[in-house]
Amino acid sequence: MASSVLATAWSVDNPVFRAYVFHSGLLVIKMLGVVFLIGRQRFTKNVFMNPEDKLTKDSKVLPAGDPDVERPRRAHLNDLENIPAFWVVGLLYCLTNPAPSLAINLFRGFTAARFLHTFVYAVVPLPQPSRGLAFGAGFAITMYMAFSTVMHFA
Amino acid sequence: MASSVLATAWSVDNPVFRAYVFHSGLLVIKMLGVVFLIGRQRFTKNVFMNPEDKLTKDSKVLPAGDPDVERPRRAHLNDLENIPAFWVVGLLYCLTNPAPSLAINLFRGFTAARFLHTFVYAVVPLPQPSRGLAFGAGFAITMYMAFSTVMHFA
Amino acid sequence: MASSVLATAWSVDNPVFRAYVFHSGLLVIKMLGVVFLIGRQRFTKNVFMNPEDKLTKDSKVLPAGDPDVERPRRAHLNDLENIPAFWVVGLLYCLTNPAPSLAINLFRGFTAARFLHTFVYAVVPLPQPSRGLAFGAGFAITMYMAFSTVMHFA
Repeated sequence: MASSVLATAWSVDNPVFRAYVFHSGLLVIKMLGVVFLIGRQRFTKNVFMNPEDKLTKDSKVLPAGDPDVERPRRAHLNDLENIPAFWVVGLLYCLTNPAPSLAINLFRGFTAARFLHTFVYAVVPLPQPSRGLAFGAGFAITMYMAFSTVMHFA
Repeated sequence: MASSVLATAWSVDNPVFRAYVFHSGLLVIKMLGVVFLIGRQRFTKNVFMNPEDKLTKDSKVLPAGDPDVERPRRAHLNDLENIPAFWVVGLLYCLTNPAPSLAINLFRGFTAARFLHTFVYAVVPLPQPSRGLAFGAGFAITMYMAFSTVMHFA
Repeated sequence: MASSVLATAWSVDNPVFRAYVFHSGLLVIKMLGVVFLIGRQRFTKNVFMNPEDKLTKDSKVLPAGDPDVERPRRAHLNDLENIPAFWVVGLLYCLTNPAPSLAINLFRGFTAARFLHTFVYAVVPLPQPSRGLAFGAGFAITMYMAFSTVMHFA
């Protein structure tokens, strides 16, 4: 019966799917949260991107940016390059009937890696390879889920 | 029965889900539409990003950009930072069995906020806080749906 | 019966849905793959974005970038502007009961267009209109699916 296949995978009774939904929601909060890191730097450094954003006469409008503002912005851009890919591939990976403990740990691992990435990039900048490892762990998990999904549906 | 839970939420018979699909589709059109705002500025100012894009000998290649081209590009980047997060969290939020009138109005509110954001940023630049309010309304709605989803599935 | 409607569309027994899953997975791999094109240029040119990323004393930190590094980065940004929109609208378009051969060819066409876009932009830069055509084909397909979905659910 067609519906049973789908229900098994994308159902709130499936622990893998529940874990996907929970971690995807956390990642929305994390990704949006970077906005506060950027805003804090903008107000501290008084540097904005548009003339209409100037707070005071002394506010600077620097399209090229200020190093302290650009750092959380680069963390944000790296999120855009990685987190939406996880959102879609995590959802599709649920359809490949993965072992629940593997799948749930992949979701946890990706989420932890992205929180860590933001932390070492834009909260307390740490020397490499801390950021590289956090990025690489998330990247490897996404790639693994993508290859698993493509091979399952090929 | 597992399938009934899912069917209730992600079904074309569920008015909340239908509203999600409709508004997500509108946001695809809106986000892609910014490309025309950018293209108009590129052709008007004759400023491009790659040597191979030059239309005439007078075309400028400015990686750093022209202010009139960069404005719609910033609007576009802000879309990338906010709209994909809505796409995923709106879909997941449907699974939390929200009150239909609340959920549908959140989808409408987010969509209206993002259309407004593009308008006041890149069509007719208006003084702040117009853009800030449009951004903030969409941001608050996405955050609300993300927290609701995470708490529901925690 | 509500569940049958959903099962027909988002079921691993639906060839349209299977094609969506397969091509979306391929696009995850392609989009993440651009990271290797960027990394290759960074290591070849010894140009990085953060002081902590310097490999040697001679490594340059150029926030404004190096032309050979910026080219694959622009390809990556163009992916971010187009591929997540496909991921969501392809999924929603499955719900409009499209003719399978049309839907499957749209998914194939978009995927081929984005692989081609990356190739002519960042692997072997080719003169226009090659990149414009690859971009335009993907853009037109996404827009078509978005309008179909919005009209179906209006």
